[in-house]
Amino acid sequence: MLLKNRLFTPGPTPLLPAAQTAMAAFTMHHRTADFRALYMRVLADMKDFIGTKNDVLIVASSGTGMMEGSVSNLTSPGDKVLVLTAGKFGERWRDLAKAFGCTVELINKPYGETFTLDEVKQKLTPDVKVVFMQANESSTGTRHDVQGIAKLVREKGDDVLLVVDAITGLGTTHMDVDAWGIDVIIGGSQKALMIPPGLAYAAVSDRAWKRMETTKNPRYYFDLRKERKASAKGESSYTPATSLFAALGAALDFVRQMGNGDVAAGRKALVDNAELAAEMTRAGAKALGLTLFAKSPGAALTAINAPDGVDSSAMVKEFRDTYSAIVANGQGEMKGKMIRIAHIGYYDYMDTIGILAALEHVLAKTSGKPVALGSAVKAAQEVFAKAQSGKVAELAGVKS
Amino acid sequence: MLLKNRLFTPGPTPLLPAAQTAMAAFTMHHRTADFRALYMRVLADMKDFIGTKNDVLIVASSGTGMMEGSVSNLTSPGDKVLVLTAGKFGERWRDLAKAFGCTVELINKPYGETFTLDEVKQKLTPDVKVVFMQANESSTGTRHDVQGIAKLVREKGDDVLLVVDAITGLGTTHMDVDAWGIDVIIGGSQKALMIPPGLAYAAVSDRAWKRMETTKNPRYYFDLRKERKASAKGESSYTPATSLFAALGAALDFVRQMGNGDVAAGRKALVDNAELAAEMTRAGAKALGLTLFAKSPGAALTAINAPDGVDSSAMVKEFRDTYSAIVANGQGEMKGKMIRIAHIGYYDYMDTIGILAALEHVLAKTSGKPVALGSAVKAAQEVFAKAQSGKVAELAGVKS
Repeated sequence: MLLKNRLFTPGPTPLLPAAQTAMAAFTMHHRTADFRALYMRVLADMKDFIGTKNDVLIVASSGTGMMEGSVSNLTSPGDKVLVLTAGKFGERWRDLAKAFGCTVELINKPYGETFTLDEVKQKLTPDVKVVFMQANESSTGTRHDVQGIAKLVREKGDDVLLVVDAITGLGTTHMDVDAWGIDVIIGGSQKALMIPPGLAYAAVSDRAWKRMETTKNPRYYFDLRKERKASAKGESSYTPATSLFAALGAALDFVRQMGNGDVAAGRKALVDNAELAAEMTRAGAKALGLTLFAKSPGAALTAINAPDGVDSSAMVKEFRDTYSAIVANGQGEMKGKMIRIAHIGYYDYMDTIGILAALEHVLAKTSGKPVALGSAVKAAQEVFAKAQSGKVAELAGVKS
Repeated sequence: MLLKNRLFTPGPTPLLPAAQTAMAAFTMHHRTADFRALYMRVLADMKDFIGTKNDVLIVASSGTGMMEGSVSNLTSPGDKVLVLTAGKFGERWRDLAKAFGCTVELINKPYGETFTLDEVKQKLTPDVKVVFMQANESSTGTRHDVQGIAKLVREKGDDVLLVVDAITGLGTTHMDVDAWGIDVIIGGSQKALMIPPGLAYAAVSDRAWKRMETTKNPRYYFDLRKERKASAKGESSYTPATSLFAALGAALDFVRQMGNGDVAAGRKALVDNAELAAEMTRAGAKALGLTLFAKSPGAALTAINAPDGVDSSAMVKEFRDTYSAIVANGQGEMKGKMIRIAHIGYYDYMDTIGILAALEHVLAKTSGKPVALGSAVKAAQEVFAKAQSGKVAELAGVKS
């Protein structure tokens, strides 16, 4: 059949049409009152989107840029930091901390697993200056217990900071940034905010700003204190990615609309949407006899193990060739072993049903075994129907 | 869940993104060499899209404008014309012919039915000057036998013309315009060519041009001979809808791409796509115990009867409210009695599966009766799977 480009990857995600239009039409110069007004409005809305009263910064970079910024601004060479890793993105924290000369203590769990609070408690010695973790490990589809870990960190007082990469977690996981005491939370544009890659966000706590007064690691482009001063005037230290700001403004308006005039309520609705799509997808996968890779799956994406004897690369190729649907393969060593289907941002009922229906054909073709057509769809529809009758929170295990 | 605007109406149909972009960016003035070059290129491609060597004209109007043009240019007051009607759009031919003072002979079949060749043969007396019909009656989802009727008309010689409203038929039905001897075939932009409303097309035969030398009905905006002269120079008689030409150019490029570099082959692929989506939809509806309104259903759309005790208006509302899916209700007297789901143009596998999955929930909710979730989807998937294994032509009953 006719092929429409359909992204089911955990970033870039499907684009919001209103954001595309805003971006395409945008021609404003960045050193003007109009652009400063847009900048201030976007920063204010981003606080509601992240759910924080802390300062929000936005820079032109991928999410990794802001990860680097949080390492370079919050540490000095030789500082002991604790990195929680159970996947490719956890390893990125490890590599960044090493690159900036930190003494890295690791909790290194196998891919697909998460950290127990006991493990964290044990490693959280008084000399640890920063804890780095993911809200959601995109390489495995795992949701980590940010709330529980934040509680342990805060119990240690103000001398230890918690930095959370929530690049795929923002807009897919309910988080209470300020109440939990997250010092830096990081996001990226190509995720739940439904715009292209190119912007990274962070919300930074007073504790973190204070830490920056004494840290010694080198930084220039990602100098957060300089960026904070510029932001206060509606500017950026260096040339901002102007069209992406236009897109972001439109995306935040859409989130506000989802929340009936309130961005924070819209973010909650967006998270509920991802939770429901994820629950539908998990039910669909199970109905096909497939297993999930993550022991504690999040709503950002669902990592589904390829069945015995099937190379997930063949599945990814079949999705692409026959349905023009781009699903993610496993990364690194996990390549060939799983597919990853995202629920981040702009997905609706028909997208969720469509990819499961396609999965049934793809599975039949790549495994050579019969598949009961409609069975994954049916399981997902049952989840949806129950959610429609008001049981969504119960189903998704969400307390919002 | 999150709501995406999803059109399943038999026009306007979903827009091609490349056409939207082309249209949004377009600023060309129409009296320039660049625009004339675009105009000529679009006219040439439209011949391949329609499948004709006849002159193609494009005017700024809805499809009805070109229907009026074919009446006003091809008839004189008092001329006897034969109108074949079995729905709202057949009645439009009747009304137009009456408005221009023709003596109207009707074959008036009940909604949902079509015409037998015997009926046409009987009414096709030597004094009939023009026969007006639809390729596809959009109000009922019926495909008429254009080939069979054209044969009867041509057997009567060159003094009788055949005018076919193929507004929803072009790009959804295999037709051989020149070999069958269709004198005027009419299309509209908001259908299989995947762009917004605002343009009407027609391909006009030599017989029809000759007729215009003697007809006496008044015409000005839709004066086809004047338009032909302007078109030969890459111009239009009056200001053309410039941005829609940009969109049309991009849409024809997409059709060419579907045909691996050939617009005519792309049109065939587009028809096959609609045939498969229609076959999937019919199978899905039947699996739910629903019946089709049309005795001879076409691939442009599927008209599904609301089951006993269910008002189709409630179904349409539920599709809109819960899935943001716009399906058409019955028109006029048929309102409340059927839903109409389109397959015209830019629909893929996931769209087709998605609307059937939603139909299952909608049916359960509006009928209050249990529905076997996944059953319509499964039936459609089976059609798709068979088509994938090369049986598409057989399934769709198409000889292409």
